[in-house]
Amino acid sequence: MMHFGKIAIIGAGNVSYTLCNVLKNKGISSFCVFVRNEIEAEKMRQKLSVNVVSDYENILKSDFLIIAVNDDSISEVASHLVDYKGLAVHTSGTKSSELLNRIDRHGVVYPLQTMSKEREISFNEVPLLIHANSKDDLAKLREFAEILSSLVFECDDEQRKTLHLAAVFVSNFTNVMLDIADKLLKNNNLPLSIMQPLGKEMIDKSFEISPEKALTGPARRGDRATIEAHEEMLAKYPKEQEIYKILTNYILEKYHKNEKL
Amino acid sequence: MMHFGKIAIIGAGNVSYTLCNVLKNKGISSFCVFVRNEIEAEKMRQKLSVNVVSDYENILKSDFLIIAVNDDSISEVASHLVDYKGLAVHTSGTKSSELLNRIDRHGVVYPLQTMSKEREISFNEVPLLIHANSKDDLAKLREFAEILSSLVFECDDEQRKTLHLAAVFVSNFTNVMLDIADKLLKNNNLPLSIMQPLGKEMIDKSFEISPEKALTGPARRGDRATIEAHEEMLAKYPKEQEIYKILTNYILEKYHKNEKL
Repeated sequence: MMHFGKIAIIGAGNVSYTLCNVLKNKGISSFCVFVRNEIEAEKMRQKLSVNVVSDYENILKSDFLIIAVNDDSISEVASHLVDYKGLAVHTSGTKSSELLNRIDRHGVVYPLQTMSKEREISFNEVPLLIHANSKDDLAKLREFAEILSSLVFECDDEQRKTLHLAAVFVSNFTNVMLDIADKLLKNNNLPLSIMQPLGKEMIDKSFEISPEKALTGPARRGDRATIEAHEEMLAKYPKEQEIYKILTNYILEKYHKNEKL
Repeated sequence: MMHFGKIAIIGAGNVSYTLCNVLKNKGISSFCVFVRNEIEAEKMRQKLSVNVVSDYENILKSDFLIIAVNDDSISEVASHLVDYKGLAVHTSGTKSSELLNRIDRHGVVYPLQTMSKEREISFNEVPLLIHANSKDDLAKLREFAEILSSLVFECDDEQRKTLHLAAVFVSNFTNVMLDIADKLLKNNNLPLSIMQPLGKEMIDKSFEISPEKALTGPARRGDRATIEAHEEMLAKYPKEQEIYKILTNYILEKYHKNEKL
């Protein structure tokens, strides 16, 4: 890893934690992490046994810098780095690479995956979307990214923003569906775990044969009696009922548009 | 399988196809299938090499009957079976077992899984929710169900209806989220496949640590700048934008209720 010189990471969030674990798993232990908040810094030292610093001096001496902070903090962090001579990347799905314009060599490494501090993931299967403002640095970034993952893709700011938006549907909103199911089941003393084979199969099937071909259920069949029964069951859950209605109508409009309602 | 006597299935839909395949895989080939529509009957003969009949005589002679027809056809089918002496079950998630009241021995076997004709599933991991109107038949049904799956649960009509409603969220509505992602990506020449690790991880994580703990993303963080950017990107997709807004608000209300909007 000497090839990339000294590596530094800024941030104490989910992405930073995950990257630290991945680098350590790859046998790279010589990186340092910048965390301003001393409590968070100490937590990270204890949990990950990594070198956590809180002054920009150490960071400025690094050769490759991953800025894994909140989207809203990227500009502020970058303002401390105008003299930085290495390659600096942020990890945001939505923010333009231009946020780092004041740093000569800059780019993006966006990991398209949901990450939580408590959970280690198989990083080798995390799509890494990379971008850099020079061909040389893009090649370097690809080389680095390919050490971490087998799924490395170049994409520009616009493509990355679209992927991030799509990811909200695939990840966050899919999660909401499971959360609502969990609530309905809990209130009837039924376990969510009974839904696991169904959830897994729907995901596998949708990616394998396409979401459109994979769809089944009352709305797909245009089974209005069942839809009405469901809406009635949801009468005491007005927010969930509204979500049921809008998503059912989305399916009905797509597949049963010309049928009488 | 002689223990259960002659087995018959009614129906030419996804559930019937899947059950035929499962019985054959279990080495049970002596069952017959009743399909009224001759074109569908012939299709099934050719695709599955099973014994397909189209008169009720054969069915009335069976000992165990699985009525795997549309929810709306169950009553009509049952009206032909008032003299049936065997154990008859339907496979609906939403319909009451009482639809079969005119048959002395009746019950339900509801497979909690999404099924398509073109796709074979690992039936051993399909939760089978069983119900019967006598203890003896419930025991028989359990014995039969346990041959097909390792996940067999007894539940009454009300519990089954709740599970079916929850399944719509877990399966159909999760599918809609992937379908919307697919649409957004296609329109930007990006492949849905890049989302597969994310979709799989979100499902695994949600079932493992709970949907609530698994949630990440802009709405969970209360990141209103990203939410606004997403809503703007969706301006040309009014239906999808509406879905984005309602689901984002659902998360914001749950986690950021007391914050100023």
